[in-house]
Amino acid sequence: MDKKIIGIDLGGTTAKFAILTPEGEIQQKWSIDTNILDDGKHIIPEIIESVNHRIKLYNMNAENFIGIGMGTPGSVDSEAGTVIGAYNLNWTELQYVKKQIEEGTGIKFAIDNDANVAALGERWKGAGENDPDVIFVTLGTGVGGGIVAAGNLIHGVAGAGGEIGHITVDPEGFECTCGKRGCLETVSSATGVVRLARFLAEEYAGDSKLKAMLDNGEEVTSKDIFEMAQADDPFGLMVVDRVCFYLGLACGNLGNTMNPSSIVLGGGVSAAGEFLRSRVEKYFNQFTFPQVQQSTKIKLAELGNEAGVIGAASLALKFAE
Amino acid sequence: MDKKIIGIDLGGTTAKFAILTPEGEIQQKWSIDTNILDDGKHIIPEIIESVNHRIKLYNMNAENFIGIGMGTPGSVDSEAGTVIGAYNLNWTELQYVKKQIEEGTGIKFAIDNDANVAALGERWKGAGENDPDVIFVTLGTGVGGGIVAAGNLIHGVAGAGGEIGHITVDPEGFECTCGKRGCLETVSSATGVVRLARFLAEEYAGDSKLKAMLDNGEEVTSKDIFEMAQADDPFGLMVVDRVCFYLGLACGNLGNTMNPSSIVLGGGVSAAGEFLRSRVEKYFNQFTFPQVQQSTKIKLAELGNEAGVIGAASLALKFAE
Repeated sequence: MDKKIIGIDLGGTTAKFAILTPEGEIQQKWSIDTNILDDGKHIIPEIIESVNHRIKLYNMNAENFIGIGMGTPGSVDSEAGTVIGAYNLNWTELQYVKKQIEEGTGIKFAIDNDANVAALGERWKGAGENDPDVIFVTLGTGVGGGIVAAGNLIHGVAGAGGEIGHITVDPEGFECTCGKRGCLETVSSATGVVRLARFLAEEYAGDSKLKAMLDNGEEVTSKDIFEMAQADDPFGLMVVDRVCFYLGLACGNLGNTMNPSSIVLGGGVSAAGEFLRSRVEKYFNQFTFPQVQQSTKIKLAELGNEAGVIGAASLALKFAE
Repeated sequence: MDKKIIGIDLGGTTAKFAILTPEGEIQQKWSIDTNILDDGKHIIPEIIESVNHRIKLYNMNAENFIGIGMGTPGSVDSEAGTVIGAYNLNWTELQYVKKQIEEGTGIKFAIDNDANVAALGERWKGAGENDPDVIFVTLGTGVGGGIVAAGNLIHGVAGAGGEIGHITVDPEGFECTCGKRGCLETVSSATGVVRLARFLAEEYAGDSKLKAMLDNGEEVTSKDIFEMAQADDPFGLMVVDRVCFYLGLACGNLGNTMNPSSIVLGGGVSAAGEFLRSRVEKYFNQFTFPQVQQSTKIKLAELGNEAGVIGAASLALKFAE
């Protein structure tokens, strides 16, 4: 039997698991709840238990696996296999994840942060078409990202590589949780889109259902804003245009500096699909020089929820070399 | 005798040569004029002749060399070893540089563009301290750059990686030769600094020798502007502050996305030294989030003219592997 790889996508609510072929085909999937009680100390033991249980269930053993790869929130030291500062897991102290999982399963283990792992997934089996230069931007509650350049994930000197959400797109923009101003995240995350809408609503004088809702203090989500824009609400269209201006500027400068074959948009906000993509592309073209315009494509993510387990599993391929 | 490497820095006026140890120590240096007559067809034959002449002069032969590396203007295909569009060499058609040089010298040959090669030089033996993640920004007649990430030079899908001069720093800024607006080059190259000064002079009302010179239509260089700023000319200080704002914004976003250990400023404009560096750093700190502020350093280039031959030579090290 050909050896398999295991991918784990650890989140604050659930941990997703998959067994894949080395070619990236998912053969089995399951998930467990993430138990964050007691400073998250049950998380790793329960992951180990679940992996061992499934391996046994499928009449397999540790020797049938090339390795396990995992994506996790928090600050990851991929060399050491440790994690710290994953607040939604209650991991405030250093966690020796690699050591525990290797001892508990007898299988080699690799780890990286969740945004990087999702980037690897989209690059390998999704919109990135396994090219050596692919950038992934995830537009969710926050804005994250991962950069694969010349075939390697870019971690940078302190692991802060790929923090696309903190690109400054407006030197005089909104304050960000990171401490500086005008970060891409402040205007293009799910909450950022709403913040931008509230800000622009103050100046907008025309007729608009969206503006009326905001002025009435109704709860509005970024999904609402995109839906109303798609239904031709004029103020909604103005907000989406501004969001795409900032995304196009940030993606444009990523293109100008890295010239990847594609910049892939994923995460909840990207559910707006081609409506979003085409508008980001318009500004991307405005902010890139001809060589980049012609060679770097703006794409939508293709894997959705599975990007995490697939990308995580790809980390384990290094043990096959 | 240990084997050596040869580095060639080909420019529109001269071609510089060096013989180095594999550790990057220069043992011999020389240069020849670049003969761009007849569509630049003499350039490669004269380089071959010069290399063969020197090798003989030093009682060496092809077997004593690991390889030759070269930096060149123009659009380079490093895989194929070809160059096109090097207008200051009169190379408008495809040049088979690698093929000619390997046949003419019997030594293996590698090539990349001049900005990338200078980046490799500063990374290897200069301010980059041989770290895996280093970005080089050269502020000259234009603004160029090279990005080394996870140990690899970033070329991108169409070879446009590292075009730092075309980062958009002001969506409504000056038109650039590349066809778009607000490129870093339009406000921080030698001509860009002067353009910015002329633009700002229109609004500046205070007393200033620099403003008087500009208003009188006198010829002013970026060097003059930096010198007057250093002599406390208030308008000069304002211009330099704005130049550094844009450089700090661009470097900040390079830091936010790549988190290199250092961003190295080189080229003619960087002759302003610490006066420039400290001001760029001020804005870099404003435009980066804490993790990057603390780990990515803004530095001045250390190798000057020799970055080209040293970086070029480093290309040849791959033949030793």
